[in-house]
Amino acid sequence: MLYEQKIINKTDAQVILKGLQKIEVLIKDGTFSLDPNKEDVHTNIESWLIEQHGIEHIGKLHTARSRNDQSNVDTRLYIRDKTLEFIQSICTLNSSLINQAEKYKDYVMPGFTHHQHAMMTTFGHILLAFTSMLVRDTERFTHWYTLHNCNPLGSAAGYGTTFPIDQQLTTKLLGFDKPDINSLDQITNRWEPEIDLVFAINVLMNHLSLIAQTFILFATPQFGMITLADEYSTGSSIMPQKKNPDPLEVVKGKTAYISGLLQTLLSLGKANFIGYNRDSQWSKYALIDAVEETLPAIKVMQEVIETLKVHKKNMEKWCYKGFIGAPTLMEQIASKHHVTFRKSKMSVEKAVKYSTGDKVTYDALKKALKEEETNISITKEEVEQYQDPYIIIELTKSFGGPGKQAIEQSSKLLKKNTNEQCAWLDKKTKQKQEALQLLEKIVTKIYSNS
Amino acid sequence: MLYEQKIINKTDAQVILKGLQKIEVLIKDGTFSLDPNKEDVHTNIESWLIEQHGIEHIGKLHTARSRNDQSNVDTRLYIRDKTLEFIQSICTLNSSLINQAEKYKDYVMPGFTHHQHAMMTTFGHILLAFTSMLVRDTERFTHWYTLHNCNPLGSAAGYGTTFPIDQQLTTKLLGFDKPDINSLDQITNRWEPEIDLVFAINVLMNHLSLIAQTFILFATPQFGMITLADEYSTGSSIMPQKKNPDPLEVVKGKTAYISGLLQTLLSLGKANFIGYNRDSQWSKYALIDAVEETLPAIKVMQEVIETLKVHKKNMEKWCYKGFIGAPTLMEQIASKHHVTFRKSKMSVEKAVKYSTGDKVTYDALKKALKEEETNISITKEEVEQYQDPYIIIELTKSFGGPGKQAIEQSSKLLKKNTNEQCAWLDKKTKQKQEALQLLEKIVTKIYSNS
Amino acid sequence: MLYEQKIINKTDAQVILKGLQKIEVLIKDGTFSLDPNKEDVHTNIESWLIEQHGIEHIGKLHTARSRNDQSNVDTRLYIRDKTLEFIQSICTLNSSLINQAEKYKDYVMPGFTHHQHAMMTTFGHILLAFTSMLVRDTERFTHWYTLHNCNPLGSAAGYGTTFPIDQQLTTKLLGFDKPDINSLDQITNRWEPEIDLVFAINVLMNHLSLIAQTFILFATPQFGMITLADEYSTGSSIMPQKKNPDPLEVVKGKTAYISGLLQTLLSLGKANFIGYNRDSQWSKYALIDAVEETLPAIKVMQEVIETLKVHKKNMEKWCYKGFIGAPTLMEQIASKHHVTFRKSKMSVEKAVKYSTGDKVTYDALKKALKEEETNISITKEEVEQYQDPYIIIELTKSFGGPGKQAIEQSSKLLKKNTNEQCAWLDKKTKQKQEALQLLEKIVTKIYSNS
Amino acid sequence: MLYEQKIINKTDAQVILKGLQKIEVLIKDGTFSLDPNKEDVHTNIESWLIEQHGIEHIGKLHTARSRNDQSNVDTRLYIRDKTLEFIQSICTLNSSLINQAEKYKDYVMPGFTHHQHAMMTTFGHILLAFTSMLVRDTERFTHWYTLHNCNPLGSAAGYGTTFPIDQQLTTKLLGFDKPDINSLDQITNRWEPEIDLVFAINVLMNHLSLIAQTFILFATPQFGMITLADEYSTGSSIMPQKKNPDPLEVVKGKTAYISGLLQTLLSLGKANFIGYNRDSQWSKYALIDAVEETLPAIKVMQEVIETLKVHKKNMEKWCYKGFIGAPTLMEQIASKHHVTFRKSKMSVEKAVKYSTGDKVTYDALKKALKEEETNISITKEEVEQYQDPYIIIELTKSFGGPGKQAIEQSSKLLKKNTNEQCAWLDKKTKQKQEALQLLEKIVTKIYSNS
Repeated sequence: MLYEQKIINKTDAQVILKGLQKIEVLIKDGTFSLDPNKEDVHTNIESWLIEQHGIEHIGKLHTARSRNDQSNVDTRLYIRDKTLEFIQSICTLNSSLINQAEKYKDYVMPGFTHHQHAMMTTFGHILLAFTSMLVRDTERFTHWYTLHNCNPLGSAAGYGTTFPIDQQLTTKLLGFDKPDINSLDQITNRWEPEIDLVFAINVLMNHLSLIAQTFILFATPQFGMITLADEYSTGSSIMPQKKNPDPLEVVKGKTAYISGLLQTLLSLGKANFIGYNRDSQWSKYALIDAVEETLPAIKVMQEVIETLKVHKKNMEKWCYKGFIGAPTLMEQIASKHHVTFRKSKMSVEKAVKYSTGDKVTYDALKKALKEEETNISITKEEVEQYQDPYIIIELTKSFGGPGKQAIEQSSKLLKKNTNEQCAWLDKKTKQKQEALQLLEKIVTKIYSNS
Repeated sequence: MLYEQKIINKTDAQVILKGLQKIEVLIKDGTFSLDPNKEDVHTNIESWLIEQHGIEHIGKLHTARSRNDQSNVDTRLYIRDKTLEFIQSICTLNSSLINQAEKYKDYVMPGFTHHQHAMMTTFGHILLAFTSMLVRDTERFTHWYTLHNCNPLGSAAGYGTTFPIDQQLTTKLLGFDKPDINSLDQITNRWEPEIDLVFAINVLMNHLSLIAQTFILFATPQFGMITLADEYSTGSSIMPQKKNPDPLEVVKGKTAYISGLLQTLLSLGKANFIGYNRDSQWSKYALIDAVEETLPAIKVMQEVIETLKVHKKNMEKWCYKGFIGAPTLMEQIASKHHVTFRKSKMSVEKAVKYSTGDKVTYDALKKALKEEETNISITKEEVEQYQDPYIIIELTKSFGGPGKQAIEQSSKLLKKNTNEQCAWLDKKTKQKQEALQLLEKIVTKIYSNS
Repeated sequence: MLYEQKIINKTDAQVILKGLQKIEVLIKDGTFSLDPNKEDVHTNIESWLIEQHGIEHIGKLHTARSRNDQSNVDTRLYIRDKTLEFIQSICTLNSSLINQAEKYKDYVMPGFTHHQHAMMTTFGHILLAFTSMLVRDTERFTHWYTLHNCNPLGSAAGYGTTFPIDQQLTTKLLGFDKPDINSLDQITNRWEPEIDLVFAINVLMNHLSLIAQTFILFATPQFGMITLADEYSTGSSIMPQKKNPDPLEVVKGKTAYISGLLQTLLSLGKANFIGYNRDSQWSKYALIDAVEETLPAIKVMQEVIETLKVHKKNMEKWCYKGFIGAPTLMEQIASKHHVTFRKSKMSVEKAVKYSTGDKVTYDALKKALKEEETNISITKEEVEQYQDPYIIIELTKSFGGPGKQAIEQSSKLLKKNTNEQCAWLDKKTKQKQEALQLLEKIVTKIYSNS
Repeated sequence: MLYEQKIINKTDAQVILKGLQKIEVLIKDGTFSLDPNKEDVHTNIESWLIEQHGIEHIGKLHTARSRNDQSNVDTRLYIRDKTLEFIQSICTLNSSLINQAEKYKDYVMPGFTHHQHAMMTTFGHILLAFTSMLVRDTERFTHWYTLHNCNPLGSAAGYGTTFPIDQQLTTKLLGFDKPDINSLDQITNRWEPEIDLVFAINVLMNHLSLIAQTFILFATPQFGMITLADEYSTGSSIMPQKKNPDPLEVVKGKTAYISGLLQTLLSLGKANFIGYNRDSQWSKYALIDAVEETLPAIKVMQEVIETLKVHKKNMEKWCYKGFIGAPTLMEQIASKHHVTFRKSKMSVEKAVKYSTGDKVTYDALKKALKEEETNISITKEEVEQYQDPYIIIELTKSFGGPGKQAIEQSSKLLKKNTNEQCAWLDKKTKQKQEALQLLEKIVTKIYSNS
């Protein structure tokens, strides 16, 4: 841009470009060493270039920009890339979840509330609940783009510059959507693009920690509903029989870690005086730690889910315990036998108490209905059926529920969402590529002889 | 919906509706008292209605729903309304800020970084920086709609219902965009619509606390740049001379408060077992406290800004101190006299040291340039001009900066943004009204004789 | 003190005292109403007294103090009282826990790590683990006294006063240990006595939430080890069979709430400018909410524990599953048969794999030992015994463990700790009483005729 | 201990000890490389030793302990050492502060509340306020010892061991005060010794951030009261005149960082199921980051303070502005002229309004007193004197205030506190040395021929 605007001439541009490209190679080779006495990476680069190529041209490297500009641009490009990687990883995880959900849509099991048996559900339904949460997560990441895919170049120290720069051009060259509307805003808020990402990560991790905790319980000897694959379990140094769900605990630990990093960013952004302050440098540590700790966790969760052993028999076994069919029995008495909901509930509550064993018996229900002065012609067969897990799932037709048709609808919608996210990803990747092509065009122009 | 679906008949619907409308009146009058022995508000209402109207019809009130459904719907309606109020308040604040920015666009003052004099700016430019932040805030609130304006009815205890309910109809009746895609998801995550709002509030409050802290410093005797209106200052019980910026400190205190509430919500949402757990009830306290503490703060900030006394002379005075014109002098030497940026910086740095007083003198600069072997024909007049605050502002042409044209552009764009937000608000208000109209239509049908 | 120092005369003191005592009565009756136009409670009181008794004497009420002094003293007295109440409640809870631990010291059950069967333990041992945590909690509360039982009077606005006050006397009259060493310190840090209390509460609540979560899992149908008493369970609005551990979930919810309040206090205390700032007022809301939400939770937990039904058979049943006796078998092979620890572990690990069923069989072990070229003369009976829960507990002799003698030792030490806390409580209560007696003596002197 | 208890024999002990000592040398040389495939550091060490020395003796290395034991001991030893280092650093900082306070005890300056001029003080008084805070900080670190200097060895996986270990001996050998009272407690709470340290650090950092923010404002061109030494200031890449208080901003950034780490630890400790869970591993990252980020900051703050340039004239100048003498004038009217406090305040408040310039004039006061019908014989000289900074400081006699005698008293007490801390440090260091001596004695015994 400096060349296009004639702020620097062609030779300046050539020397600077060649120098930077040399450094790029050295960095990739791991042979460019940073001297801590030279304050920061920007100063290191310029002083190395001056040593190599003299001050005549390189002395113009820093024209019309501050280190704030550079650091701000770098951070946005980094977060932008990571945003896309998070969305990609979640989409892949979601595809796995939807696949598994279809596989396990007939695996009946107790649905829990308060850690107690509530109503009947299927393992597939639970897996779709996870997917549904994660779809919202992707939307938080795409929202980052709306808020922050803007070009900060030209802010200088926060108060603009008198050089005749072209911010529209740098916007295009870097694949941004528009230039920052005020030079002072984002320099003062050098925690905000960071926190929008970290918040999205934190909610995502809360969801992953929910999946983790749910699986940890399902995998206890007591629940016995799932077993983690050996590759995702670990042993003990003193207990020969142990098989521990470490990767799932790690997800929980990382969730705790992220919530602290979010708090750090919040604290960094509170009650500052206008203009850049060095405090905000700590937002970088929080940002990078947050990304590096969590991005791999999504893939691990995907693999845990894909390799999970699911114990159909144990899931089913619990469906005949703890009166878990009672709520549907109650609904059916109300809907098929025209008893008011309240009466029906009172009757079934009594019937639960009168029944011995694990489900409402015909006799107990009869006794209860009589006491409630509710006269209906329910049969013994009906009482059994309305408590049968497979029949209950069949009867459950509400949208979003565990019923067959509902699962199909949800599954289809969730797939559609995932596909839309993929399309969005493609679009954004293309925008980045076009920016690079434009950049290469100008580089070619600079290196051309004419 | 229960009536439309023939789950309850017309008489049931009439009795229930009349009962509920009676309770609405009593609550508005403050004469409906809740009995704490009756567990919660839902049970209180049903049992009062049964006392008044018998169980025959009222016994069907709770058909096809759980208290989870009700509480979830209530929370979403509450947050949705508050979201709109927040956006409304921020838009009003932004209009004030843009007005004041235009008024003060010529008030030159030092721009700060690290609390030290950096480069020249204007008070108007700073006010537009505030506006620019707040525009992003409105976008976080509108994003809540994308994520959460969905209908949770039909989830029941999280596992759906066997009643033949119509979730598309309840979606329309309540002004939602679509039904929840999975019945178990949001019942398990009864902290998430809350946290998306509270996060938006927290970032907003961070911005307001930045404005507050900036004004607090500007209002010290030492800065002397602004004075708060008497209505927004308080006295002391033992110091007769005091005039304290209490409302601004209150904004900072509330910001600290919100960051705690956000943490509460994060913690509530971590590592839960699937299905509803009572822990999440505490999300309601966090939510309501967050809203009630902060919504009024936006209006107070608006009034503080509208009634502010701004001391042009004191602002200008500091523009001639602390070498604040040096960066522009350096830029102009580079751009007008074709010295490399680095050389120019090194020369002006030396010149600062050689100068006595508060700005770079012609002689000092000459000496410095000579030492740097930089031969240019800069005049004494130029040296003066490039350090003059008004000329510097004129020379600053970069987009987003404090220059005249840049301020006009930014101002126009920010107004446009504000207008778009207003239009969005109108659209969403209309959606709510249409839902109410549809609701009234059905109510009329229920009350009709045919 | 003002009277003792002759800063006000006897009549002044009499009028002021009488007035304040009148207000005390009105407040207790609920008939003293605060006028929000009069800034705060201090101004309300003074202006009411002036209305009633004129300015001549009441005008001296505020002599030599600021509202900071008053608010600081009030806060410390409040926290001090609450500190004692917390310690009292924890001691009572601990006594219950130790009682129950003795009752259940023979209830063998699996000890868990990673939610998986680890080694044998008893329910009594687990209850003593809870007690042991709570003893540290009491020490955090007593530590508050060491840090903050100091007299802030005399700080005025933070910079002292020229009135000839006697801070040693007010220290004695209020039961403080010493006056604050610097007038500016604690006025600037009006979040610190608060945070030391809230931190102690937070760690306590983390412990209570651990107890809660552990009981919630033990009470699932799958674990089936305990049942909560009916008074500490709740039902469902749509599921007739439900019995939910609500009070335990409430403890978890409150723990999340407290962690937010702690964060609020941290944020309030960060990067302030020296001297009082109004931000710190929000520390009061955090403080009082923290106390009122959590103090009752300790008593509820105590009652839950005292009324718990414990299912010995179900606990014992799981001791014969999942190879939980393997670690002791391994230890005994090492210690009784002089095999190295590593060899023994490798052998038993193999034996676990070779065994069918839920414990290591003699044949499997033999095969494994042979493969490891380990020749020992272990008998079939030994193999059985070393995996038997009751024998394992008998063999476990290490201090702090579940063995009989260890439980007796721990129990004794924990009782001793609890008794020491009680003695400390008595001492501190006496200190408060002595202060009150001294105060009454001076009041009597003021009201005397001579 | 294993040898002393005859759990392993002399040859075993010799081979193991020699092996470990070899590893110690390799680690110090940086030539012991960890193989990530071998799970953790413990497994790496054992497997390296087995490779070198065979399984016969080394196979006993892990006898009677789990990795939990080792990790728990290591963490406590690490925190214990760091605790001592923190106390040492704070004591050194405090000595500097007290020295500087004595140097600047006559530097009068405005005392602030709400960032506004409140009452007169001295720079020395402010420095002692900082010291007074830091003394409480040392007490939080010493409190760690009371809570956590206990021996966790013998816990094994949390449920003890059947090996005949001697926990009293290991307690002495490691310089602990006593063994852990319950084997399951601290293994479950592997975030608690961490959080007690990090909380102490966080409160300390809040205090350092207060000092930082105060100095940042004092160093603005507007306040002009202090200048940071060049070694503790930085420049700008585009502003030749800049001198930024970076180290102080870094302290603020680190404070935000720590508050996040504290939150991580809180979250890690919430609602766990009894027994070890891997989540808690993340407490180590939080712990070590917290220590490494903050320990050096204390020394930097000490150096900033020791090299500070303090501008007496500028401090004094502001003592004649903004009616800062008014509060003392009011106190003196009340105390010397027997006007009630309230009347005196009302009069001086009016007088402030009637006065032009920066202090209350005799005429303005007279007019005000007359309006308040208060007839006193105050002289013009008195009015001047009571507003004179030096006379005010002389008049301020209250303990803890800026008066000469109060400063001497406070200074003496704070020195005494610091000395007591030093004595405590010596005692604890000696305890560690004695433990090492005992250890060496046993080592000698093992290596002896007899």
